Amino acid sequence: MNKITILIHCKDQRNIIASITNFISEKEGNIVYIDQHVDREQNIFFMRLESEFETDNFSTEAFKESFKTHLAAKFNMKWRIYSDIKPKMALFVSKYDHCLYDLLGRYNSGELFLEIPFIISNHKDLKSIADSFNIPFYHIPVTKENKTEAENKQLELLENHNIDFIVLARYMQIVSGKLIAKYPNKIINIHHSFLPAFVGAKPYHSAYKRGVKIIGATSHYVTEELDAGPIIDQGVTRVSHTHSIEDLIAKGRDLEKIVLANAVKLHTNRKVMVYNNKTVIFS
Amino acid sequence: MNKITILIHCKDQRNIIASITNFISEKEGNIVYIDQHVDREQNIFFMRLESEFETDNFSTEAFKESFKTHLAAKFNMKWRIYSDIKPKMALFVSKYDHCLYDLLGRYNSGELFLEIPFIISNHKDLKSIADSFNIPFYHIPVTKENKTEAENKQLELLENHNIDFIVLARYMQIVSGKLIAKYPNKIINIHHSFLPAFVGAKPYHSAYKRGVKIIGATSHYVTEELDAGPIIDQGVTRVSHTHSIEDLIAKGRDLEKIVLANAVKLHTNRKVMVYNNKTVIFS
Amino acid sequence: MNKITILIHCKDQRNIIASITNFISEKEGNIVYIDQHVDREQNIFFMRLESEFETDNFSTEAFKESFKTHLAAKFNMKWRIYSDIKPKMALFVSKYDHCLYDLLGRYNSGELFLEIPFIISNHKDLKSIADSFNIPFYHIPVTKENKTEAENKQLELLENHNIDFIVLARYMQIVSGKLIAKYPNKIINIHHSFLPAFVGAKPYHSAYKRGVKIIGATSHYVTEELDAGPIIDQGVTRVSHTHSIEDLIAKGRDLEKIVLANAVKLHTNRKVMVYNNKTVIFS
Amino acid sequence: MNKITILIHCKDQRNIIASITNFISEKEGNIVYIDQHVDREQNIFFMRLESEFETDNFSTEAFKESFKTHLAAKFNMKWRIYSDIKPKMALFVSKYDHCLYDLLGRYNSGELFLEIPFIISNHKDLKSIADSFNIPFYHIPVTKENKTEAENKQLELLENHNIDFIVLARYMQIVSGKLIAKYPNKIINIHHSFLPAFVGAKPYHSAYKRGVKIIGATSHYVTEELDAGPIIDQGVTRVSHTHSIEDLIAKGRDLEKIVLANAVKLHTNRKVMVYNNKTVIFS
Repeated sequence: MNKITILIHCKDQRNIIASITNFISEKEGNIVYIDQHVDREQNIFFMRLESEFETDNFSTEAFKESFKTHLAAKFNMKWRIYSDIKPKMALFVSKYDHCLYDLLGRYNSGELFLEIPFIISNHKDLKSIADSFNIPFYHIPVTKENKTEAENKQLELLENHNIDFIVLARYMQIVSGKLIAKYPNKIINIHHSFLPAFVGAKPYHSAYKRGVKIIGATSHYVTEELDAGPIIDQGVTRVSHTHSIEDLIAKGRDLEKIVLANAVKLHTNRKVMVYNNKTVIFS
Repeated sequence: MNKITILIHCKDQRNIIASITNFISEKEGNIVYIDQHVDREQNIFFMRLESEFETDNFSTEAFKESFKTHLAAKFNMKWRIYSDIKPKMALFVSKYDHCLYDLLGRYNSGELFLEIPFIISNHKDLKSIADSFNIPFYHIPVTKENKTEAENKQLELLENHNIDFIVLARYMQIVSGKLIAKYPNKIINIHHSFLPAFVGAKPYHSAYKRGVKIIGATSHYVTEELDAGPIIDQGVTRVSHTHSIEDLIAKGRDLEKIVLANAVKLHTNRKVMVYNNKTVIFS
Repeated sequence: MNKITILIHCKDQRNIIASITNFISEKEGNIVYIDQHVDREQNIFFMRLESEFETDNFSTEAFKESFKTHLAAKFNMKWRIYSDIKPKMALFVSKYDHCLYDLLGRYNSGELFLEIPFIISNHKDLKSIADSFNIPFYHIPVTKENKTEAENKQLELLENHNIDFIVLARYMQIVSGKLIAKYPNKIINIHHSFLPAFVGAKPYHSAYKRGVKIIGATSHYVTEELDAGPIIDQGVTRVSHTHSIEDLIAKGRDLEKIVLANAVKLHTNRKVMVYNNKTVIFS
Repeated sequence: MNKITILIHCKDQRNIIASITNFISEKEGNIVYIDQHVDREQNIFFMRLESEFETDNFSTEAFKESFKTHLAAKFNMKWRIYSDIKPKMALFVSKYDHCLYDLLGRYNSGELFLEIPFIISNHKDLKSIADSFNIPFYHIPVTKENKTEAENKQLELLENHNIDFIVLARYMQIVSGKLIAKYPNKIINIHHSFLPAFVGAKPYHSAYKRGVKIIGATSHYVTEELDAGPIIDQGVTRVSHTHSIEDLIAKGRDLEKIVLANAVKLHTNRKVMVYNNKTVIFS
């Protein structure tokens, strides 16, 4: 049994849905999931579709070629088609261990549909955690002086392992435009505030100073503009005057873990589409 | 422009989606919304679809007839097809005014897609509110002795006004099996607890006694078994030992208002399907 | 039985709590509530205390005088002492009715410990609602030209009725520094966003554009700097790409009602203290 | 510097607060935290107080003796006094690893004020996790036949290590009345539902079947009656018809981790008092 997932967006037009479902039907596919969204402000049509093909000689590549020629061209679609294989995720970390523990715990228990070929860090602190989960750990220090060189090492590792997407699990370095350009909407960051409130560094300190009654965390794709990329998921929790900055940080860690894990799951299940710096998240 | 909404459920089978979208296409309809769900435990397929027809001579009745013959019969579907007209809601109340104020405020501001031909109450207390919103108010007292008679009066009003669905906005009488049978999955109740916790009367007192840290409210369709019908929406809020029973009741009122209004909106937008005492809620 | 509520803040020092409880004890008072908070960043002590006095000749004024001389002076306290009478609230509204309906509904049902001598509006639209609740409604239009004159009319009404605090229930004018100076930390506003995200006008439009997954509302005291006063309460709710701006506005209305009502209750129950633009909220 | 925490409950009476604060003052203590609660239904007074003593010859034991004689006797108080030392926690686990990983991760990062002398399990599965955190792991299988013997082994370990409290981190055995009697309100369990909904085994399956829109988790002290002990904390999260039972279980794991960790923190910070099967949770 072959299963593929199709993501499409294009200008909203008549008969798109019928055309797509007919196309699948002609290829003897059975649609097992279909969902669509129309952004009425911008007149953009989005669709997510899963289809199964029982035919022995089904080829995802041939399907893609036919889809491109007969359907995508006609409606001027942007599209992606995925077969049912686990994406490869590279983990970037620094010194904070809570998101790392959380993701590896979920990975170990089989909760995540992905592979983790390696972990990259600019510090050595978390190597023992990587070791206890038997995942290769590459220590690539980053300084002002060696920035380009460090990045090239990262890129080499990413390419050699055919990495599909990157997760910055509280990685405390700003990634370069070059890396972002190579992995557009494929680098997931966790920001420790309810964006767009408190962009930049030390958001819990800022939240404390402002006296907010709720704090949050935001997972988003990394774009050139800092903390301004498309939001994938957000979570919040109540705080009060009784909480110190340390309390906010501790409560925040719980949010960060869950919000980042949600983003990873949505991404690997191909549920996220991006358009005009916003996400469409299919259920 | 004619717009219809189609709700379908049937045994999951191959090619359902393609068959339906083809059928719409042949009728020169343009699908503007499609969403589906498969309950894998029970192997049931659910679909919600909105379609627009520009043809001058489109008739919803003719479409229904054709749908029934050519499509529904083939897949053994349960189906409903709605044209784009406001459903008629009857409001049943007793003495509590918060849900009544809330629904009428929303109605007045144009937030709700429905008409309210009248309000029925077993008490006179809320008549002045109905008056201030210019909605007819029928006082039908209910006692042990007059129960059948009172119910017949209710049924007469409901039928004379072609009521589509009933909302029990803290109506403090148990509705009869006869009424339920006439309006299956068309009577919406708000229960002041997080069902299935604290079924029956005085749930806030029970919650207080049990020392729970969160209280809730539940909107559901009324079925013969008390407080056990299909859940449409639920809401919760935190409480603590500092809250008295009166505090829980006050906090609960806010939940009840929002959870009931959500249920009314979901119902009138034809987003709810019921199967095996559970709801499928389309987005 | 006489009951008073005492709010204190001062530099944190040894023996404050014992000194205060002794003082009350000497006056033959019985402490029925005591809570305190120390802001360790700024070394400030906050306390809220309720005490009952059974003596026939108890005088709040005499108690205040003695408290000031013997206790407040010694510890250099900022303090307020309230006897158990309902504060007078002035309601300022414009065209949106949801917060008005909500507050008046709560007022009518006895949920709020306050009096509402009148409602002021710069538009006539909501007069009929005020009428249906039998509350005087003053229409004071505000234009660029008559701004000072309009404000003087407002101030005259506020003073003539001995108003204790003001609630801006979606009042669409910026109040002047003069009014703010007369009612410091006594003007409560509801901002329709999760501050400090989306300050200024049209926050739901901004939230929609940014693609956030959660929207919020914030009640705060009004200060000279727009949308930057001490936060009293905040609430949030989830949204998704399926929600239009109108949906966000509708969902936001529910948040605004609850968050504003919470702030009013906290204020009238003397549970809020302000220091350095932040609130301490006692339970 | 000596710091103690005092927890008291007794019948509500006049002058309790002044008597306690005076007593501390006479002992030259400085009160750094005081909070109280009166249960008006049952007329019970609760207090939590932290005090610091600078005197060189301060002895917690002597203070306790004096407190007992001069204060507790007079007001017929139930009381506990703690000095500032880390309580010892025994972890009981079975096969699920998520709560174990979570607690040990927090423990490692210094977030928890406690010591973990050992982990007990009725299965060997999680030994490697205990090893990677360098915590002794005792495998004590439990069968119908060896139940008493197994329990005696557990009790011996608990006593030899002076264990203060026990955490059942998804321990899949029912603990005996003997153990409960030795550790009253000192055994914390995490139940994977929003109690009192779905008591007993397989709550996620029950929640799925009932079609609830929100699932929860509950941490509570273990009492003889199953799943009916005093609730310490509860958490909830939204679910929909799109979630399978496996999805509910996965979402539930995140709740369980946070709700159990919260309970452990509240317990070790001596913020929890129990009366009549309900908790008072100080802030």
